[in-house]
Amino acid sequence: MLSHDLQVRVRYAETDQMGYAYYGVYPQYYEIGRAEMLRSIGFTYRGMEEEHGIMMPVASMNIRYLRPAHYDDLLTIRTNLRKHPVDSITFHIEIFNEKQELLNSASVKLVFVDKNNDMKSVSCPAYLSEAIATAVNQNA
Amino acid sequence: MLSHDLQVRVRYAETDQMGYAYYGVYPQYYEIGRAEMLRSIGFTYRGMEEEHGIMMPVASMNIRYLRPAHYDDLLTIRTNLRKHPVDSITFHIEIFNEKQELLNSASVKLVFVDKNNDMKSVSCPAYLSEAIATAVNQNA
Amino acid sequence: MLSHDLQVRVRYAETDQMGYAYYGVYPQYYEIGRAEMLRSIGFTYRGMEEEHGIMMPVASMNIRYLRPAHYDDLLTIRTNLRKHPVDSITFHIEIFNEKQELLNSASVKLVFVDKNNDMKSVSCPAYLSEAIATAVNQNA
Amino acid sequence: MLSHDLQVRVRYAETDQMGYAYYGVYPQYYEIGRAEMLRSIGFTYRGMEEEHGIMMPVASMNIRYLRPAHYDDLLTIRTNLRKHPVDSITFHIEIFNEKQELLNSASVKLVFVDKNNDMKSVSCPAYLSEAIATAVNQNA
Repeated sequence: MLSHDLQVRVRYAETDQMGYAYYGVYPQYYEIGRAEMLRSIGFTYRGMEEEHGIMMPVASMNIRYLRPAHYDDLLTIRTNLRKHPVDSITFHIEIFNEKQELLNSASVKLVFVDKNNDMKSVSCPAYLSEAIATAVNQNA
Repeated sequence: MLSHDLQVRVRYAETDQMGYAYYGVYPQYYEIGRAEMLRSIGFTYRGMEEEHGIMMPVASMNIRYLRPAHYDDLLTIRTNLRKHPVDSITFHIEIFNEKQELLNSASVKLVFVDKNNDMKSVSCPAYLSEAIATAVNQNA
Repeated sequence: MLSHDLQVRVRYAETDQMGYAYYGVYPQYYEIGRAEMLRSIGFTYRGMEEEHGIMMPVASMNIRYLRPAHYDDLLTIRTNLRKHPVDSITFHIEIFNEKQELLNSASVKLVFVDKNNDMKSVSCPAYLSEAIATAVNQNA
Repeated sequence: MLSHDLQVRVRYAETDQMGYAYYGVYPQYYEIGRAEMLRSIGFTYRGMEEEHGIMMPVASMNIRYLRPAHYDDLLTIRTNLRKHPVDSITFHIEIFNEKQELLNSASVKLVFVDKNNDMKSVSCPAYLSEAIATAVNQNA
């Protein structure tokens, strides 16, 4: 439906003594992948928080680690959105190295909460739904 | 089969601007939970790496985020082992806050690789299987 | 004047491919060292933020890295307070390994800001000054 | 002598509950700043490690935190080299936000160790000295 590629280099900080990118670093890659996907359709997570008080905590995540990433590897974070968000939004992520080998695949489901209403759950805000719908139509 | 509790406080470094422990911090909690479970049965991950050259990369992980953890919360990381490891080892983790509320549950599957043989996969080393079997028998 | 020891194990997450605790991890050790020193004198950083709206951003930091820390090392974080805080508070930290070798020494200077007044600088709150003065007197 | 600018966005992972980039994140910014400076003169830290077995642990670091960085800020990391390296190499770093406000300034001193000789200290390798000298001459 929507797909976005972001490139990022593995930091030394992100390696562990196995010489791999630490398994707990991947959620950061997913975070910047989805933020840049949303920015590419004219929407910033920051704006949603600052202007509307809506935050998006993660509800669940599934990760498969297929091959290690190494220091200084230039990774491609491919973020896919397959369904229109309603009460939650789920991103599907694939990470490739420079040889186009698939290193990692994941899905991350986030919900919407209102920080001005005691962090209660809300539906996907209309401005986000509409930005996604517009982008999907432009791609079609 | 085997269960181990570890307590850890949420660091300021681990919070994000939502005021929650960042969702990418949890893999660190799982890491220290399983390391301390293994230490409690007389086995150290460090020793396995240093003496035997066996490393344990993560193959897959599933996480459900139920309630947020906050700065300075004293968390209980409950690490459970439900099956004897053969080609992989899977830990099931539950994290509770001081009110005994379940914040997070996860499963983490790791494999065994030999750093002296080009990081090739190997079966669970006998000394680890035996340490687990002994601990399970003592608990029975 | 005041000194406090805290023990912490180096996490796998904190290592890098050199096999050392990453140099950027040390600020986390200083953070938990000073938080536990303050807790030991009956004061929590969390309470100061939640009840009084006072936050303590870091203004400057100097670090000397003398010897590496390794995975699973049980470190002692020694946090020292040498002067009564006025407009800022400076902690001096030494980190030792299990052989009592000094690995790292640092000083961290923090200031006080009021989150209910646009993060403006304020002096050290009286309840913190007094908690420190009381602890120093008890030690004398 | 040599100066290099790198842009990086503050990750959500890097914020803390103050809403600031956590003070312990800055060493990661310095790391990627110096890696990219060296890459810009035809030299990679990764190559030095892999081909020559030379690693560069940090010996000391001084940081001044002047203004906070916030989530999604597009930072400019300016890395300066003021002296030819001999037994150590010192980088001076300034970090600016999009308004060109100086947020942070630091110096980081690294040494050279030989992983094939028990991590013993060595002088700056000739290929690095020469790459720097060539780049400085081209700038002159």
